[in-house]
Amino acid sequence: MNTLPVMEIAAALKQARRVLVLTHIHPDGDALGSQLALGMVLRGLGKEVSLFGEAEVSHLYDFLPGANEITTELPDLDSFDCAVALDCGDAHRLGDNMTALLAIKPFLVLDHHAGHQEFGDQRWVDPHRASTGEMVYDLAVALEADISSEAAYCLYTAIVSDTGSFKYSSTTAETFRVARELVLKGVKPAEVAGKLFDNYSLARLRLFQRVLEGLSLHCNGRIAMISAPQRFFGETGAAPQDTEGFINYPRALTSVKVAAFLKEAEAGMVSVSLRSKGATYDVAKVAAMFGGGGHRNAAGFKRFNTTIEQLSGELLRALEPLVEKC
Amino acid sequence: MNTLPVMEIAAALKQARRVLVLTHIHPDGDALGSQLALGMVLRGLGKEVSLFGEAEVSHLYDFLPGANEITTELPDLDSFDCAVALDCGDAHRLGDNMTALLAIKPFLVLDHHAGHQEFGDQRWVDPHRASTGEMVYDLAVALEADISSEAAYCLYTAIVSDTGSFKYSSTTAETFRVARELVLKGVKPAEVAGKLFDNYSLARLRLFQRVLEGLSLHCNGRIAMISAPQRFFGETGAAPQDTEGFINYPRALTSVKVAAFLKEAEAGMVSVSLRSKGATYDVAKVAAMFGGGGHRNAAGFKRFNTTIEQLSGELLRALEPLVEKC
Repeated sequence: MNTLPVMEIAAALKQARRVLVLTHIHPDGDALGSQLALGMVLRGLGKEVSLFGEAEVSHLYDFLPGANEITTELPDLDSFDCAVALDCGDAHRLGDNMTALLAIKPFLVLDHHAGHQEFGDQRWVDPHRASTGEMVYDLAVALEADISSEAAYCLYTAIVSDTGSFKYSSTTAETFRVARELVLKGVKPAEVAGKLFDNYSLARLRLFQRVLEGLSLHCNGRIAMISAPQRFFGETGAAPQDTEGFINYPRALTSVKVAAFLKEAEAGMVSVSLRSKGATYDVAKVAAMFGGGGHRNAAGFKRFNTTIEQLSGELLRALEPLVEKC
Repeated sequence: MNTLPVMEIAAALKQARRVLVLTHIHPDGDALGSQLALGMVLRGLGKEVSLFGEAEVSHLYDFLPGANEITTELPDLDSFDCAVALDCGDAHRLGDNMTALLAIKPFLVLDHHAGHQEFGDQRWVDPHRASTGEMVYDLAVALEADISSEAAYCLYTAIVSDTGSFKYSSTTAETFRVARELVLKGVKPAEVAGKLFDNYSLARLRLFQRVLEGLSLHCNGRIAMISAPQRFFGETGAAPQDTEGFINYPRALTSVKVAAFLKEAEAGMVSVSLRSKGATYDVAKVAAMFGGGGHRNAAGFKRFNTTIEQLSGELLRALEPLVEKC
């Protein structure tokens, strides 16, 4: 009997004939890279595989091989004898078709999120893993499957994407072990980094510059705030999702312990991202005060019927007790 | 007989009693991390070790353990029975004391620069290695030496520093092999990344924002230019060396093939950095036209008695033939 979760998932997949591979809504690089790679691995084992996602793949990730094979049209769910959900921290993140999807049996789950809410029939959940891509690699090894250079490319993208190129605290020796194996299978690290990071539109750069211009520091430089009012999007031609990563810049200031980014994606709706450095400054607590959530060093919330001006004062008062010398 | 260069270097070090460990002038993270780590490794083997550098360690790297042990005062060179130069592509990069230093016998050389100009008595030069830190790790293994957590931290910093956190094309499976070993010795990747990358001064961020404001695109977005006139440094309080990494942002624009950064560090003196993407666009050729040099994708030159305005037009005309659709 196999007792390791990865072996149990592998055993269930070996028995399947038609597999539906799923990931979470608003999929990021780890979600899409893992979904595409597992699809390739299972096809290599002779399975019939479908990949489903609610929305078109974002232009940020459409460079991934096979990205156009993820269908947005719900396939005939009765035809599958197995489903796998990847990188999905709870069932609701399967999206609008959650109930119908969960009816596929067996429903397998592979995830690395801390605070994972259990669902499905069999699970391999490991919050110590830096990315789901890292886990899919080990699953492919457990399946004794070939990992093609294209599948390796997808998995490497997943890993780099979810670790900020090996910078986040989730990065472990296991992460480097898998990265090495994938490079040995032909992945060129600079090529993936170029696709993920050298992919700025001019509109995004203009928006970035406007946002930096408005940076303010508080509490002797310990708190940094930046914001993007709705008019910035109109004026620069950038889209609300183009702000991804902006908060890393105020956070990178030597003096800063806590950084906040207020974004007015729609009139009257402000979404707030909070980031902090180290174990001392718990921004999840502050996000919870505003009805949001997240982790100690990365959290957020949304508020309706407000403005950036109104919310920033209130937020600053909530952040001040976190840091010294205010 | 040992025939591998790493074994020969190890054998020479094993015989030495007093070793002087050197690196190149204007040392970067790879140079300093390698120098400090090799010092620790050799001390662990019972050697007397001195570390010498012409100038104080830059504030960018003074977080490295042992950084304050690099002396700027030239020690009594007669007292050494061995010297090692790390990450030094040619003898002139040893600095003003080159001739006196090279008189120490045996003089060992460990380097990874393409186009290395041979010097010293015994060499291990491998341009396929992503960093000298990666090589020092293998040297420590060849020496059967203990690698302390502090030495591991220095070597990991060297690797991350010289690969842009595993993004540059120099990154190989070997790089990930060594990174994994160092993490197993206790290095926390996020801690090193935080020291190397989350270390912006407010002045630097202000300068960055001013520089981005002036970005111009040419040839259907294929050429990007940014500049920092001398007054920007006065107005923001940033120093000329604070511009490190700025050119990566215009380079990261999807449409851009060639990026140029013109910096007026002193009145009338403009230094130009050029970056390009892929094998097609050779900026070293353009730099050579202006008396400079470098590599295909990263080159530069300096010009005196000029202004950014004067030079930018001339430079643009030299860059235009490189890219299509101008």
